[in-house]
Amino acid sequence: MEALKEYDYPGPIYPVNPKYEGEEIQGVKVYGSISSLPDDIPIDLGIIAVPAKFTPQIVEELGDKGALFAHIFSSGYSELGEEGKLLEQQLLEKAKKTHIRILGPNCMGIYNPKSRIGFSHRLPMVNGPVAFISQSGGNAHRVAFAGIMKGYYFSKIVSLGNQIDIDLVDFLNYFRSDPDTEVISMYIENLKRSGNEFVQQLKETTKEKPVIIWKGGKLEAGNSAVKSHTGGLAGNIKLWESMASQTGVILVNNFKELIEMIQTYIYCKIPNNLDTALITGGGGPAVELTDECEAFGLKVPKITEKAQNMIKEFIPEVNSILSNPFEFGANGGPENIAKVMRILDKETHISSIMITYNPEWYPSEDLNLEEIVKNFAKSISPDSKKNIISLHNSSRARKESIDIINEFYSKTLENGIIVYDSAQAAAKCIHRLWSYGNYLKNRI
Amino acid sequence: MEALKEYDYPGPIYPVNPKYEGEEIQGVKVYGSISSLPDDIPIDLGIIAVPAKFTPQIVEELGDKGALFAHIFSSGYSELGEEGKLLEQQLLEKAKKTHIRILGPNCMGIYNPKSRIGFSHRLPMVNGPVAFISQSGGNAHRVAFAGIMKGYYFSKIVSLGNQIDIDLVDFLNYFRSDPDTEVISMYIENLKRSGNEFVQQLKETTKEKPVIIWKGGKLEAGNSAVKSHTGGLAGNIKLWESMASQTGVILVNNFKELIEMIQTYIYCKIPNNLDTALITGGGGPAVELTDECEAFGLKVPKITEKAQNMIKEFIPEVNSILSNPFEFGANGGPENIAKVMRILDKETHISSIMITYNPEWYPSEDLNLEEIVKNFAKSISPDSKKNIISLHNSSRARKESIDIINEFYSKTLENGIIVYDSAQAAAKCIHRLWSYGNYLKNRI
Repeated sequence: MEALKEYDYPGPIYPVNPKYEGEEIQGVKVYGSISSLPDDIPIDLGIIAVPAKFTPQIVEELGDKGALFAHIFSSGYSELGEEGKLLEQQLLEKAKKTHIRILGPNCMGIYNPKSRIGFSHRLPMVNGPVAFISQSGGNAHRVAFAGIMKGYYFSKIVSLGNQIDIDLVDFLNYFRSDPDTEVISMYIENLKRSGNEFVQQLKETTKEKPVIIWKGGKLEAGNSAVKSHTGGLAGNIKLWESMASQTGVILVNNFKELIEMIQTYIYCKIPNNLDTALITGGGGPAVELTDECEAFGLKVPKITEKAQNMIKEFIPEVNSILSNPFEFGANGGPENIAKVMRILDKETHISSIMITYNPEWYPSEDLNLEEIVKNFAKSISPDSKKNIISLHNSSRARKESIDIINEFYSKTLENGIIVYDSAQAAAKCIHRLWSYGNYLKNRI
Repeated sequence: MEALKEYDYPGPIYPVNPKYEGEEIQGVKVYGSISSLPDDIPIDLGIIAVPAKFTPQIVEELGDKGALFAHIFSSGYSELGEEGKLLEQQLLEKAKKTHIRILGPNCMGIYNPKSRIGFSHRLPMVNGPVAFISQSGGNAHRVAFAGIMKGYYFSKIVSLGNQIDIDLVDFLNYFRSDPDTEVISMYIENLKRSGNEFVQQLKETTKEKPVIIWKGGKLEAGNSAVKSHTGGLAGNIKLWESMASQTGVILVNNFKELIEMIQTYIYCKIPNNLDTALITGGGGPAVELTDECEAFGLKVPKITEKAQNMIKEFIPEVNSILSNPFEFGANGGPENIAKVMRILDKETHISSIMITYNPEWYPSEDLNLEEIVKNFAKSISPDSKKNIISLHNSSRARKESIDIINEFYSKTLENGIIVYDSAQAAAKCIHRLWSYGNYLKNRI
């Protein structure tokens, strides 16, 4: 109730609770039972948050009243054992009988900023191109807040729970044709339908929109944790890997990789190849970034002699590395970085330009981040097929630097430049995006 | 000069520069040449920062004056090509002739808080148990500052540069018998001596002190970046891996892994096995942490029935996971975490207890971090062989949370509890520490 009020949900809300019958909650009249609700109201969604044992009855009453959907927030079902499984069967029977569809149980429900519904407080009521389907309410929350930091918003987020009726394949199909959704992302612990059907639907989807899947419960103990969490069997991660390569699905390993991969699809063009130019400060860091890029599948080829000579015209060779990776010693200011990027933009074999720039190391009153970042963005031509990638790895531990760092992050994203916290993160994402591009090119 | 003054270096300093002869720099008289220095002064160290081509002459003059060591800051030697190699040969000839030893060239020199010498500004003048030998001046800097964040300090840090005379094996041998050093860490790009000699010295060292090596320049482009950086050939990473397993060296992949591994040795007991208990908030995160631990070699076994029953006495089963990983839904406050840890301390097969606690999510005036963290620390007995590991992964983007997060970090470390930013980071480190323990047990 509080969240719906917080978001100014525009439709009517009917709280039902026998204990408060006739009273008001947040200015809305409380009903004592579902049957006592007015007969002529069309109920789109019933949200059920009562102990599990009472839910079959509530579902039946909602269905009898003509409600279309029930979201069951309550937990205490198959994730706890046999008794809970029986309750789930009862829920399904009541739902079939009364033609109501169930989301859950054991889930947070729906976040839909366009409809002004959210499952928690302080979620941004801003539409974006990302759909997220989650078998964890916790991850459904985390992703919404992480998106703000990464510069994107969601069309819808749905927390699936035990999927006794509506399942992730239903949502996959829905988001495939949802005009508000450009990227579909998921946290999955286990499937309720046959793998073949899922594979078929994934193939239909990935040719239109990328599908990013984080599979939870990969090995032995992870599998067992899934059982305690949502009552399902997690299945072998090898199967998921093979499924991903057949369907063009982008598989990621954890929350961090998920939010970075979504960001990558939104901010980057699909690269033609893996060739990367690296511009950084310090010889050791140049070696490290090169190692990390290579370890995760990118290539760091030399640039042409011609381009090297152009760079030598304004950067002295002593204490510099000038063939890729690039390191300019004391000459590594933002103007020279932008100048080198303009030269690299003409190097046709390079598809990503990675730069490290940590503005908080040089705080000054003259620091014009707006101008510096715009200069970076303008250093490649508007029709360039290259991606500019910013690496920023300073800790935000020093309170004095937070404002500079946060301003740098937002300016960078506003100017269409993606920021990662490590070369490893960048390399994994760019490699995965390239693989998806390859899949699209090679599918029949 | 500025840095030596900043650190109140207690010995006499003699600036030499013909341009400022007779003048004063920071209150110290400047000499016009080395030969014009007083004859009776014992010179411990000459720091040379003039263009490369003048350095052989300066080294000779210093040697003639009886100086013991010269640190050559200047760059422009073998890292640039043939001409630079010739210069290095000249340096060596002059050094042999005059019995002076050379550190560098192309390096930052020495940081030694006990002697109040540092190669840069604002370095902490605090002694600690860690030695770091670095073939990158940039990494030598980074590690000193990162140590502050991770709760440890250094005995000495040395930036090696091109190692034409004193090399990393010399420093390895020195630190083996240095009473101020308990852990030896390195950033290495290439060896100057035979691999066999290095292996022999490593074996001698690891039985007394752990040696943590970050090898830079692993694959093709990384190798080539090393050549531009320090003029050496990086060599095959497979050789380094096999060398590490023969010698008990702890090999890490990047800067982050290096500083976390040092911290792990300092804050953790060497674990007897890989069995880990995980306490976290949220079912999805519980699955994720378990996956990450397993992916990087740890195990997450069930606890005994007895312990499970003890936990059930104060935490209800609905919406909880109670057998490992642990997740307590709304009952996951710090008191219950500490209570469960006390029960886990009696589970003999578990050697690590990992907890996630993010105090900035529950800011309040009553939040007594001191007490909470002390409670965590006291939840295992003083003679327990278990490690408590704290995972804290919130971003510090919100300025309002910085103080809480920083207080939590320092309180945690002060109470001897290590903090990592992810289960992946923790799992890698604990696994590596266990491997080192295994090496020590199994060596003849």
